[in-house]
Amino acid sequence: MSLTAVVLLSGGLDSTTCLALATREGFAVHALSFRYGQRHAFELAAAARAAARYKVARHVIQDIDLRLFGGSALTADIAIPKDRDLARPDASIPVTYVPARNTIFLAFALAWAEVLGARDIFIGVNALDYSGYPDCRPEFIAAFEEVARLGTRAGVEGGEDGRTRIRTPLIGLTKAGIIALGRELGVDYRDTTSCYDPAPDGGACGHCDACQLRRRGFAEAGVSDPTRYAPAAG
Amino acid sequence: MSLTAVVLLSGGLDSTTCLALATREGFAVHALSFRYGQRHAFELAAAARAAARYKVARHVIQDIDLRLFGGSALTADIAIPKDRDLARPDASIPVTYVPARNTIFLAFALAWAEVLGARDIFIGVNALDYSGYPDCRPEFIAAFEEVARLGTRAGVEGGEDGRTRIRTPLIGLTKAGIIALGRELGVDYRDTTSCYDPAPDGGACGHCDACQLRRRGFAEAGVSDPTRYAPAAG
Repeated sequence: MSLTAVVLLSGGLDSTTCLALATREGFAVHALSFRYGQRHAFELAAAARAAARYKVARHVIQDIDLRLFGGSALTADIAIPKDRDLARPDASIPVTYVPARNTIFLAFALAWAEVLGARDIFIGVNALDYSGYPDCRPEFIAAFEEVARLGTRAGVEGGEDGRTRIRTPLIGLTKAGIIALGRELGVDYRDTTSCYDPAPDGGACGHCDACQLRRRGFAEAGVSDPTRYAPAAG
Repeated sequence: MSLTAVVLLSGGLDSTTCLALATREGFAVHALSFRYGQRHAFELAAAARAAARYKVARHVIQDIDLRLFGGSALTADIAIPKDRDLARPDASIPVTYVPARNTIFLAFALAWAEVLGARDIFIGVNALDYSGYPDCRPEFIAAFEEVARLGTRAGVEGGEDGRTRIRTPLIGLTKAGIIALGRELGVDYRDTTSCYDPAPDGGACGHCDACQLRRRGFAEAGVSDPTRYAPAAG
């Protein structure tokens, strides 16, 4: 019997690579996505394609509504920043940060893992080529593991062996490194979507943080960029 | 301008007392409830009554579906235990425990608090007269505060003053102590509901853990129990 893991799957480049890794490790993958009030549904379609391709044991989409709180360019009527200079050292967290989103996603993953008796939760955060979100950093992940240890039946009754591990295999990789890893694993990045502000037909804008990081990643990895950009993306 | 707080409000005895306390402290209260797939909606009706009575600034009900995961007598087709001997030392966590529920609730509260710029989140957990849920203990709450500190913009950019505080004013009180405190604050406990397994008309069963703890609390506080029990409750 294979071990069970919960994999947070947005349909983007990172989480799809994470899914490929968990599959390669032999886990029976339970993939978890969210319809959280994001501006577009292309990423959920990409998540469903990835779930099918990797033959996950189950794919659950939780419906939550972070628009009720607002406060982010991804969930409220705030413009997505374009052509930011990501090389410039800049301590401020951009408006695309969704308050506490990864805390919420991990909390749901923890609930499902506990019901399944799964010890491993995969999340595709990375702390190198990223937009400066606080909830993508190793110290945040470590703190969440403590919450898992202290707040669940498995943590209390299961002892050392029962502890939930938040697996972040990409956390120390650059975007180019993630793409190189994904290529080894056979990930088809045409099937993934990263853009914060796609055209109505799903074409990537080419200018938001996510597009910039992704485009540069392919260039640095020496891999031709399979992303379908919107005609106006330039 | 009054300070803003997020109060987790189930409509039960504990969270309603918490709401009364936060109101007394002068906070502009933003009350947060969940339709999470629980077996009955009486508690949401009670939450709405409490929100109206205490004139909260806003009451949001998040719709989430923990039945997709199952694993608890409160969200799946598992019988609610009746007449458990709660005085017996018993290390096992009962089937009414909902995996990671408080982690999920606090994660949403954290998201809202961050958007509002609120520093205080109230949750009515108590660790004395309770059912042995791991996510009601002080060490769990402390771990969650670390997640809040490391995973949010306020924690990263706000420094010491920006830190979210998870306020648990009831955590060291017995149920009788909570009731005595609520009486001082003018809480009308007729308006609250605690039963895990109410009759179709909302009458309390009198025999589940929640009913037992509540009934004993009123007795120990020397306060007549205003709970409306179902005719068969005995």
